[in-house]
Amino acid sequence: MSNHRNTDSLRPFFEPGSVAVIGASRTPGKGGYNIIENLLRLGYPGKIYPVNPRAKRILGLAAYPELKNTPEPPELALIVLPPSLVLKSLEECVARGVRAVIIESAGFGEMDEPGARLEKRIARMAERAGIRVMGPNSVGTINSDGHFDTSLGRLNRLFLPKGDIRQGTVGFIGQTGLFTGVYLPLVNSEIGISKIACLGNKCDVDESDMLEYFGEDPRTKIIAMYLESIKDGQRFLGLSRRIVREKPIIVLKSAVTEGGARASGTHTGSIAGEDRVYDAAFRQSGIIRVGSFEQLWDVARAFVYAPLPRGNRVAIINLAGSGCVTAVDACVRSGLRIAELTPATRAKIKTVYPDWWRVRSPVDVWTAVEASGFEATYTTVIRAVLEDGGVDAVVVIMAAVDWVPGKDVPTLFTDIKKDFPHKPIMAVSPLGDRKIYLRMCQGFQEMGIPSYTSDESAIVSLAALCRYQQYLLHAD
Amino acid sequence: MSNHRNTDSLRPFFEPGSVAVIGASRTPGKGGYNIIENLLRLGYPGKIYPVNPRAKRILGLAAYPELKNTPEPPELALIVLPPSLVLKSLEECVARGVRAVIIESAGFGEMDEPGARLEKRIARMAERAGIRVMGPNSVGTINSDGHFDTSLGRLNRLFLPKGDIRQGTVGFIGQTGLFTGVYLPLVNSEIGISKIACLGNKCDVDESDMLEYFGEDPRTKIIAMYLESIKDGQRFLGLSRRIVREKPIIVLKSAVTEGGARASGTHTGSIAGEDRVYDAAFRQSGIIRVGSFEQLWDVARAFVYAPLPRGNRVAIINLAGSGCVTAVDACVRSGLRIAELTPATRAKIKTVYPDWWRVRSPVDVWTAVEASGFEATYTTVIRAVLEDGGVDAVVVIMAAVDWVPGKDVPTLFTDIKKDFPHKPIMAVSPLGDRKIYLRMCQGFQEMGIPSYTSDESAIVSLAALCRYQQYLLHAD
Repeated sequence: MSNHRNTDSLRPFFEPGSVAVIGASRTPGKGGYNIIENLLRLGYPGKIYPVNPRAKRILGLAAYPELKNTPEPPELALIVLPPSLVLKSLEECVARGVRAVIIESAGFGEMDEPGARLEKRIARMAERAGIRVMGPNSVGTINSDGHFDTSLGRLNRLFLPKGDIRQGTVGFIGQTGLFTGVYLPLVNSEIGISKIACLGNKCDVDESDMLEYFGEDPRTKIIAMYLESIKDGQRFLGLSRRIVREKPIIVLKSAVTEGGARASGTHTGSIAGEDRVYDAAFRQSGIIRVGSFEQLWDVARAFVYAPLPRGNRVAIINLAGSGCVTAVDACVRSGLRIAELTPATRAKIKTVYPDWWRVRSPVDVWTAVEASGFEATYTTVIRAVLEDGGVDAVVVIMAAVDWVPGKDVPTLFTDIKKDFPHKPIMAVSPLGDRKIYLRMCQGFQEMGIPSYTSDESAIVSLAALCRYQQYLLHAD
Repeated sequence: MSNHRNTDSLRPFFEPGSVAVIGASRTPGKGGYNIIENLLRLGYPGKIYPVNPRAKRILGLAAYPELKNTPEPPELALIVLPPSLVLKSLEECVARGVRAVIIESAGFGEMDEPGARLEKRIARMAERAGIRVMGPNSVGTINSDGHFDTSLGRLNRLFLPKGDIRQGTVGFIGQTGLFTGVYLPLVNSEIGISKIACLGNKCDVDESDMLEYFGEDPRTKIIAMYLESIKDGQRFLGLSRRIVREKPIIVLKSAVTEGGARASGTHTGSIAGEDRVYDAAFRQSGIIRVGSFEQLWDVARAFVYAPLPRGNRVAIINLAGSGCVTAVDACVRSGLRIAELTPATRAKIKTVYPDWWRVRSPVDVWTAVEASGFEATYTTVIRAVLEDGGVDAVVVIMAAVDWVPGKDVPTLFTDIKKDFPHKPIMAVSPLGDRKIYLRMCQGFQEMGIPSYTSDESAIVSLAALCRYQQYLLHAD
């Protein structure tokens, strides 16, 4: 592979000193307007060169009729033009000596056969000129550290009306614009972003390139991906095996049915068989595979907020007996074991129950809550199980309810979290009252405890931590 | 089966003229206090007789030292005593001529062997005396019509701090207290309750009894159940086959793993094999089986708010291409077909796109939203697909964002919903900003459109409507 394809060549996609917007627009809502608005509102400190044949100024910035008129060659060019104009524009980028281009225009391989042919010509041009091209049909990149955002959505107005992008530790790589769009408020507030790359059709920069780059990126500690296809399976798995020793890699692979693959335009072969191969290959390479965007968030939050457990013995604390049953079902399905509790642990737990109660595992606490109140029950039982050497992690199931007057439930966990830094605590607040639920989630998050809507989602996420820990042990 | 076991014998569990609370308490937070508080706050119009050997008055009501002292035999007695006192109390109920008893005390078969033996003695006593016993370990009943609530949780204070129980059409039968507890705010505000019965250990009244009762109950149009075991499979399936012709039956069956079954105390045999038998038997009887509480809510909301589709051809409208892929994956897995759109439909849709766009199915609308705005795009595309004779239902995927300044997104659907009353419209607002999400959900609900967090949950729910419709067609 030629020299220009090393990870250094990807740096301009995230921290360029200057960026040209080809197809810049004066019309709010258009991609060529949104990008500039987003960059300005985030406070991007580099140079912005709007390129538009008719405008003198756009959003207060001097505009240039053609790329060759900009005061310097930009480090990164964004192309936001109708598809028929893209090839010519790319040619101009090459002529101007631009090293990195994001083609945000759609209407290529994802749309029809003529589009696919055009995309191949773009790929050949990039290859020949030795420049890096992300897209076409990319929705851009975000770098939370550099106040940098090339997404063409109405980011600031629509998706983040109130604030800046929070710095976090998860790098998102997507064959989708959802990471910089619909899901941005969620990943921003509940997970935390290091960088996002929306790869689009991957005519040049692909998931392996970006995985390698995120693997080296010091701000990225966890890598989360949405993929419809994998261009070079062997390279991807090889990189994964190396990177996964330092950073967990979570992958949502869609297009797993024939119909889904047709819709993604990626494939026409035997998808079901291929999907089982993916499953096995991912597992062997230590990649954590998830089945939905919701699971992607759930598992990512587990890695962001919880320590890795030393084993798979889980204590379950549940408000209801039926919840104990569904939680055990979920543990068994996920390969976790219900912790046996020692007689000493049971004796500590027993103190909050009436005399006639027999303590079991999972711990059904409703009767104790009635006898001793919510606060005494939960803090006593959580401490007791965490002090037990046979417990590697605890799943605490509550309800989204104002249990303790004048006190938010998560605050009860402050000391517990400090005293047991090496055992994951997974909080579950089933959806009851949605407003209280929201407040509880935020409270737990501020405390560094991942919080979930259902026992199953917490348990699936905890199982991902366990499997990762197991993989690391056996890979060493 | 003796005469006392007909559905009439269950009426006192929901609409008794008088109720005794045996184990009534003056201590807030205790079950025997909560029940009375709940009844008073809901405005139950019948007589309440607190029974307590030491109290003169409880919550302003005259209290009675023993059941025999109440002015009349109550129609229903609630026992909220420690387990060791329950049998004697039940004896007194029999002596006083009470016909229906809910034993809300825990510590019986669900706890240990001595508890199981005690439970058997209770069952024999009920049988011999010809009275109906719900429980033990029941968390009570709710009847939204009669302002009646026997649940022992701190319902009003904790779970419904602001309001009464809303009348709805779904009857909930649970081997769990969660329906009257943790999940009550959710089922109350987002689904709507006709009646709830928390059966507990089912020593007498079981899921089949209650299914039959709800089958005859004119206010219950949809039946939702959580079950860990089924006492008489043949009776249950026979009743289901009959009732399901009028009312959909949705069942969450847990204890599907050996561990889960042990935790539920229901079984020690070969669970995995048994679970497959349940699957087949449920399907043949027209029962809709779901895999989690979240799915139970999702599917119930679909039945509450959407009409039954005439077929399984679904139009998907999605904000992102990747969303189209995951939606198609979900449709294929659920047995739904992606609708082909006629040339006329495609022409109507085309009007909101730039010239170079080629309309496909699923419909990826991001480019149209950029070109024509959110309102014009969504209303045009939704109308176009609903007017298409080859479309039986539509799944509309948006984002939880303030798309139209000063206007809530759901209001855009008002006329559409009126104009197409026979085709289900499923709204999906992936979790972005949670507050806007919440507002959108409420807006859609007020309009009678079920709304979902993910394409998959909407599609799974729509598939349940389709399967039910298919079952009705073939059962006729």
